[in-house]
Amino acid sequence: MKYDVVTLGETMLRLTPPLLRRIEQTVSLDIEIGGSESNTAVGLARLGLNVAWLSRLTENALGQLINQKIRGYGVDTAHVKWTPHDRIGLYFLEEGATPRAGSVIYDRANSAMSRITPEDLPEDLFQSGNARLLHLTGITPALSESAKATCQKALEMALAAGWQFSFDLNYRAKLWSPVQAQQGCDPFAKAAHLLIAPVRDARAIYELPETEPEAVIARLSELYPQATIVLTLGKDGALGKLPGKTNAPIKQEVFAAQEVGRVGGGDSFAAGLLYGYLQYEHSEPAERLRLALRWGTAVAALKYSTPGDMPIINYQEALQLVNQTGSVEGKISR
Amino acid sequence: MKYDVVTLGETMLRLTPPLLRRIEQTVSLDIEIGGSESNTAVGLARLGLNVAWLSRLTENALGQLINQKIRGYGVDTAHVKWTPHDRIGLYFLEEGATPRAGSVIYDRANSAMSRITPEDLPEDLFQSGNARLLHLTGITPALSESAKATCQKALEMALAAGWQFSFDLNYRAKLWSPVQAQQGCDPFAKAAHLLIAPVRDARAIYELPETEPEAVIARLSELYPQATIVLTLGKDGALGKLPGKTNAPIKQEVFAAQEVGRVGGGDSFAAGLLYGYLQYEHSEPAERLRLALRWGTAVAALKYSTPGDMPIINYQEALQLVNQTGSVEGKISR
Amino acid sequence: MKYDVVTLGETMLRLTPPLLRRIEQTVSLDIEIGGSESNTAVGLARLGLNVAWLSRLTENALGQLINQKIRGYGVDTAHVKWTPHDRIGLYFLEEGATPRAGSVIYDRANSAMSRITPEDLPEDLFQSGNARLLHLTGITPALSESAKATCQKALEMALAAGWQFSFDLNYRAKLWSPVQAQQGCDPFAKAAHLLIAPVRDARAIYELPETEPEAVIARLSELYPQATIVLTLGKDGALGKLPGKTNAPIKQEVFAAQEVGRVGGGDSFAAGLLYGYLQYEHSEPAERLRLALRWGTAVAALKYSTPGDMPIINYQEALQLVNQTGSVEGKISR
Amino acid sequence: MKYDVVTLGETMLRLTPPLLRRIEQTVSLDIEIGGSESNTAVGLARLGLNVAWLSRLTENALGQLINQKIRGYGVDTAHVKWTPHDRIGLYFLEEGATPRAGSVIYDRANSAMSRITPEDLPEDLFQSGNARLLHLTGITPALSESAKATCQKALEMALAAGWQFSFDLNYRAKLWSPVQAQQGCDPFAKAAHLLIAPVRDARAIYELPETEPEAVIARLSELYPQATIVLTLGKDGALGKLPGKTNAPIKQEVFAAQEVGRVGGGDSFAAGLLYGYLQYEHSEPAERLRLALRWGTAVAALKYSTPGDMPIINYQEALQLVNQTGSVEGKISR
Amino acid sequence: MKYDVVTLGETMLRLTPPLLRRIEQTVSLDIEIGGSESNTAVGLARLGLNVAWLSRLTENALGQLINQKIRGYGVDTAHVKWTPHDRIGLYFLEEGATPRAGSVIYDRANSAMSRITPEDLPEDLFQSGNARLLHLTGITPALSESAKATCQKALEMALAAGWQFSFDLNYRAKLWSPVQAQQGCDPFAKAAHLLIAPVRDARAIYELPETEPEAVIARLSELYPQATIVLTLGKDGALGKLPGKTNAPIKQEVFAAQEVGRVGGGDSFAAGLLYGYLQYEHSEPAERLRLALRWGTAVAALKYSTPGDMPIINYQEALQLVNQTGSVEGKISR
Amino acid sequence: MKYDVVTLGETMLRLTPPLLRRIEQTVSLDIEIGGSESNTAVGLARLGLNVAWLSRLTENALGQLINQKIRGYGVDTAHVKWTPHDRIGLYFLEEGATPRAGSVIYDRANSAMSRITPEDLPEDLFQSGNARLLHLTGITPALSESAKATCQKALEMALAAGWQFSFDLNYRAKLWSPVQAQQGCDPFAKAAHLLIAPVRDARAIYELPETEPEAVIARLSELYPQATIVLTLGKDGALGKLPGKTNAPIKQEVFAAQEVGRVGGGDSFAAGLLYGYLQYEHSEPAERLRLALRWGTAVAALKYSTPGDMPIINYQEALQLVNQTGSVEGKISR
Repeated sequence: MKYDVVTLGETMLRLTPPLLRRIEQTVSLDIEIGGSESNTAVGLARLGLNVAWLSRLTENALGQLINQKIRGYGVDTAHVKWTPHDRIGLYFLEEGATPRAGSVIYDRANSAMSRITPEDLPEDLFQSGNARLLHLTGITPALSESAKATCQKALEMALAAGWQFSFDLNYRAKLWSPVQAQQGCDPFAKAAHLLIAPVRDARAIYELPETEPEAVIARLSELYPQATIVLTLGKDGALGKLPGKTNAPIKQEVFAAQEVGRVGGGDSFAAGLLYGYLQYEHSEPAERLRLALRWGTAVAALKYSTPGDMPIINYQEALQLVNQTGSVEGKISR
Repeated sequence: MKYDVVTLGETMLRLTPPLLRRIEQTVSLDIEIGGSESNTAVGLARLGLNVAWLSRLTENALGQLINQKIRGYGVDTAHVKWTPHDRIGLYFLEEGATPRAGSVIYDRANSAMSRITPEDLPEDLFQSGNARLLHLTGITPALSESAKATCQKALEMALAAGWQFSFDLNYRAKLWSPVQAQQGCDPFAKAAHLLIAPVRDARAIYELPETEPEAVIARLSELYPQATIVLTLGKDGALGKLPGKTNAPIKQEVFAAQEVGRVGGGDSFAAGLLYGYLQYEHSEPAERLRLALRWGTAVAALKYSTPGDMPIINYQEALQLVNQTGSVEGKISR
Repeated sequence: MKYDVVTLGETMLRLTPPLLRRIEQTVSLDIEIGGSESNTAVGLARLGLNVAWLSRLTENALGQLINQKIRGYGVDTAHVKWTPHDRIGLYFLEEGATPRAGSVIYDRANSAMSRITPEDLPEDLFQSGNARLLHLTGITPALSESAKATCQKALEMALAAGWQFSFDLNYRAKLWSPVQAQQGCDPFAKAAHLLIAPVRDARAIYELPETEPEAVIARLSELYPQATIVLTLGKDGALGKLPGKTNAPIKQEVFAAQEVGRVGGGDSFAAGLLYGYLQYEHSEPAERLRLALRWGTAVAALKYSTPGDMPIINYQEALQLVNQTGSVEGKISR
Repeated sequence: MKYDVVTLGETMLRLTPPLLRRIEQTVSLDIEIGGSESNTAVGLARLGLNVAWLSRLTENALGQLINQKIRGYGVDTAHVKWTPHDRIGLYFLEEGATPRAGSVIYDRANSAMSRITPEDLPEDLFQSGNARLLHLTGITPALSESAKATCQKALEMALAAGWQFSFDLNYRAKLWSPVQAQQGCDPFAKAAHLLIAPVRDARAIYELPETEPEAVIARLSELYPQATIVLTLGKDGALGKLPGKTNAPIKQEVFAAQEVGRVGGGDSFAAGLLYGYLQYEHSEPAERLRLALRWGTAVAALKYSTPGDMPIINYQEALQLVNQTGSVEGKISR
Repeated sequence: MKYDVVTLGETMLRLTPPLLRRIEQTVSLDIEIGGSESNTAVGLARLGLNVAWLSRLTENALGQLINQKIRGYGVDTAHVKWTPHDRIGLYFLEEGATPRAGSVIYDRANSAMSRITPEDLPEDLFQSGNARLLHLTGITPALSESAKATCQKALEMALAAGWQFSFDLNYRAKLWSPVQAQQGCDPFAKAAHLLIAPVRDARAIYELPETEPEAVIARLSELYPQATIVLTLGKDGALGKLPGKTNAPIKQEVFAAQEVGRVGGGDSFAAGLLYGYLQYEHSEPAERLRLALRWGTAVAALKYSTPGDMPIINYQEALQLVNQTGSVEGKISR
Repeated sequence: MKYDVVTLGETMLRLTPPLLRRIEQTVSLDIEIGGSESNTAVGLARLGLNVAWLSRLTENALGQLINQKIRGYGVDTAHVKWTPHDRIGLYFLEEGATPRAGSVIYDRANSAMSRITPEDLPEDLFQSGNARLLHLTGITPALSESAKATCQKALEMALAAGWQFSFDLNYRAKLWSPVQAQQGCDPFAKAAHLLIAPVRDARAIYELPETEPEAVIARLSELYPQATIVLTLGKDGALGKLPGKTNAPIKQEVFAAQEVGRVGGGDSFAAGLLYGYLQYEHSEPAERLRLALRWGTAVAALKYSTPGDMPIINYQEALQLVNQTGSVEGKISR
């Protein structure tokens, strides 16, 4: 098997003032690269899986920078489609501090990735035996009609090749409305073996305001009875549910974590979750889900305590946290 | 009306080691500009009011730097008095971390502003219809006799022009003794429509050690029966009282805030307070005071979570906080 | 007279890797603001003139940043048109070192300024007695048809108000072709009292390849007989010519300068040139032109030795250079 | 008396990514110098004592850097042995954030200090009247056999000269096993007037897992009945016990402290402890121990709130903390 | 053909004070990774060739960092041998400025790469059709006997698979003596199709002090008559000679270049040279050599003007330089 | 002999924008410490001599910083007089680039050192056998009357103790007029065994405008016939003359040097000169002077190529330069 996971999505340049400064106070911007799917891909690669990331990038130094970072962290970028046209999307992030909310200026219109078409997909790749799982998020179909069509084509080919499919709803209110999101995500959710959703997004898209997580997950399970559903609950951890009405939700609490880099937590959770989901494929289903949730939560906690968007974590430290009984607080090994 | 607020005071160069280092550990110093009145002026300008800042600056790059920053943030500095003589005052600030107290080395003697004289004031400006309010603090009369005389002249002219007057006691123990401060501030407090005081300063100046805030405000209200009095209580919020014995104090709790920049909180409170005080001028007095306190506390909290001395805040985020019911903690809008 | 100079143009965010790094090597980008007209405006303000800068900016932190910098340096930005729509244009600059050419990635499409319309101009401003001169460059009409129409409207109103008009060809090959530039600039050149052109641009637009500067200026003088023409020649200084066939070109050599910040040299030249042109308005024409060329060359040299895009220079040091006989190399006054 | 304290040990270059970054995320490393004994020496010098630090350093810029920093902070380095051979030991420290543990890569093998021999000691120094106390730690004998022999020689000479002797167990699991540490430290512990041990180290070396601090100190007091024993308990403060079965342990709670620089806390505690131990030499023994514990805890808390490895503290602020009744939190004196 | 070039060598961490500071003046060290063969590999990958880099790395964050950088720039590192033992070699570089020489402290003893053995080589890789050329340098056999044996094994397997072989003498006086270098390099030089040598190294190793380049190249051509020989001459360019007594040397002058990053010039030359050598394989031999020399010199010049050790260059800009007739000095394309 | 050289002077905090920025462009200031005498002292200590620096410092973190740096570089600061009063002098330096002159804002009035009195001198130190030479400059007597009296007292005590005396005119036009300088320096020049003067200063003070160096040195030799005179000529090197009319001046050319840190060159020259003057004390006088000039010029060149004010040089590299025949340009030893 060449790849454990194949994923497809947009990665933008993220520009952030250092040291919690506001844009009006800064003389320089720190560069990160930000993309939900590439974040997840890097997390999986750091845990030892083989991952390919598909995208469309403009042939200039900004596209190169994105490619170089993702490839450097061990993700295969050989299938990226390069174009002399369009631009690299970017966003400006002011990191917040209570009560000052973090603030984002998106500047992603007309990006190379928003103009991807189904023809840009590497058909050779989507063959039986080439990968175990395709991972998509709800951001990509929101970028444009052609990006949505590209996701659909990728999904079709993956299913035809017998791959599994995971989908993270990941609702972006600045890209589409809840109704559009519901319609746009529906075909992907319907096909997902594993469906991930921040509870806030699920509430927004499925018109479930102020609904308890247990009721939200039950509703999703009704809508998508084929899927294992995982809700992320922020500080309240995560909730997972196997397909089948009789299966009760499984809860995983968060690991205590000092906030260093807030962005990318959900993507890191997805990385840990997919890792557990694939590694324990042959375990008993409830145990598999329990472990996947635990890995997801552990990787998210490690990410949370690390600067930047990507889960630059180690397998050993994640494993230690998954197996943890005592405290690691304040420890330096020497 | 040309200006909403006119203010007068000294702004120094603030030099601070980065990243909580001590002076003995640093190889560079971050530049801020520090002045109570200019901080308040910038906060008011960020909220959309028209503000002029009066001062006296030496004609060199340091004076230019101060002028450029304040003007850049939208405050009118056209009335500043420039001189080839004297020096720009400065102070070295080591930011502390419990139990290490923040530490200041003042080096402000013989500054251009300490040598301001009443003749340096722009008489043309102090005309009826040119401004709504003059704002002074207890720091300026403490700088020198001529600075005190300049404050008195400004006050006289402002009152003659029918402007309102706000005064922030702002006691600096390194500039004068409590007794001197009481005598020096008295004429200004006696004339103030709005009198602001950190409770700690009020206790020090008016010999009210270990007195409860309610008793302190009552005492000030006795001394200055014409004034609306506002006490800031640090972590305990703020307390306001309308003139008149029968008016009970109004309490405003603080908004939860992560400490990023401790300095300038009081000045930012004053900015929010003055904003509310002027914007709700025609509301019912108790409601006006209640809103002014709420704006003051909101702006102070936003400042507290922002690096630097000045309240580089936005009207929208302040408004959201003032109107807040839910939590903004950890939120990034996307 | 309220303003000496009014100008109109786009200012972008410029993002540059520090220390001559390439984009692929950097983890942060230094922020400058880059706009030909605002650079010139800042230079004029530093020399003591009153300048207003007109533009269209998006209401977000990036727009604020641009406004704050230009205003901070003393240029009046009160007439800027603010919009909730569109985006702030930006460009990524890699500074080069021989033989590695400096490299620019423009990302300015769909900017707020490119969508300016004649209605965005402050008609009140364009009154007799409000300004002495309007300054435009060939970049703005190249942005869009509506930007071109806005320039034309501004020119009409300025001429109607009796202002003088200066125009800097400033050809941007990435925005339009030489033929388009010739047609687009022609109406402005025809109306200019003062026409500035880099000799390279003049050769490109007017199809004069490998023509000597003296012949280029002669050709421009034929085309635009009403204008005082000034050619900038890079390391070879500048060449000026008064209207009238009999007037011989006047040459000004460059001042020796160490390269610190290459960008913005032409705009700084324009600042010095306009300063001299306006200050010596009542001198004998050839002497006026000679002094204007000398001021232009001096300000450009000072800029060249200063980091950033804008001529953060002082009147005194420019004057000293203009009057210079001896060398200033390596001098520190103490 | 020339010196209050003489100490001997290795100081390495410490290389740390800034801002909690991981090594894989950083483009630069901050330089600190890290050595248990030199940290303690610097703390003592900052408190006003005369201290000499003995070591062996390679004659290159790295050795110079270490020498320069320690000497700059007021410790006498004139007795350091310089060699053209060997290398300067170093370690890479990633500072952690819960749940990500701090991580160290030691690279200290074959260092100049690990090859010190008894002949490298300055015999002239070890004379009666030249110092009051020799301070060693369990790190140095763990470096090599010759380093251990050097410690033994220093101890012999110090005792012969009538100096007191303090020993900090300071167990480094990466240098030797618990059994080796027990055997290696035993002769030093047997000779110590003052024996310091982190409770975690004492448990590891003396096979006392999950033993309460009171029982650990009792056990050490049995083993080393001649010594005053001090256990550091991390967040639980410190515990001290005078020699003699009837003397009950004395407890000192920690001072509340914001974590800024975690490394060097134990060494800073030792500095404060030794300061109190020497300054109150003529006080009643229990009072002397109580004060020494209080000074140790205060200096550790100040260090904890200061960046870097070394206790760059002031006598005045330490004294204030030792005498503290009220809170210093958030205070800036002005 | 899977790879164009396979190479094998050590890459160290390079630690350098910023801004030309000395180690004693700096508080941080900039991280580069430094390895002759990986520098060449990155250059080749930036020009579009497929390259694999073989080495031996310690499994820690430092090893990961090296792997990540080289992989990020597009070189295949999948064949690197990972070990839990040994250490990552490093060196401290002070960049010089005339007359202060650059200064290096090597700290590479006992590195993972110095302990590589022939068994660590991936035998599967060394098959016919897997690569066109193996590139080695004289640094690797100087590291240790086992490293030398590994080079010999790699050479044998490469020749057996029908690959070409290039060898860069690259003499390191701190690793072995001239006599040792001559004996150690001889078997590699005897087998090389392409033999590269800095003229200074060739003089040192082959005892040809003060010999003219033409005579040096003649002597090497006698010793290694099978090889195309290329001498690099520093500021005097490069000299190449085809095998065969009748072939006269071909000279290539340097391209003018501003010094930004001095280190890595020779490795970058090798990258350009190998690029030309492989791309023009089917050209007439003298033309092939002429173009290879021109590409080598162009890539070295671009590197020289770029910070860091590695040739982070673009194919387009190298091509432009190779084809250059006019000047690129000071040019910014816009 | 305890010290080779004792010196006395003021050291200020120097605050400089990084990367050639202007003060108006910077957000931080780099810290250097600047003092002519301490610069010379550090240079001498780096060359291996024993040096004591006398001064008066305020007891705060700024005073500590100065003490720590000078002591760290190996100069004995034990005799510094500490005071709770006054302030640490400072100056802001903008480094220039042709044609932009470097620019200094002095802020040194009322400094601790300007208030030194003869009583602050350590009388015990000024004993026969305690030092070989006292070094003063013309800056200190210019600070204040009491500073001048302190210099005179130091000179008297040094001469009484049989020490030699060197004096560097070092004229500061911002501190006194040429006439005042001539009168103020005269007693010191009359007593000097070694008199150093920048030719520009000598011309200014002794009213010798546009006089050739040879004539200037002749004039000084007439005025101070007892002294060995050394003129520094900037880029033209240095000129020395032994006492006695028949001794012709000896010329030393500069060593080619890349400018990295311009400030402190004269002080570094003095360090090298004094080193040679003392080391070759027993050589033939002309040879001694020739070598002293050569050492002075070499140390100045090394300093010039090093950032910061102080000559952080090595004995070996200085020796190599003094003995130099070939070029060191661009060399890295490996």
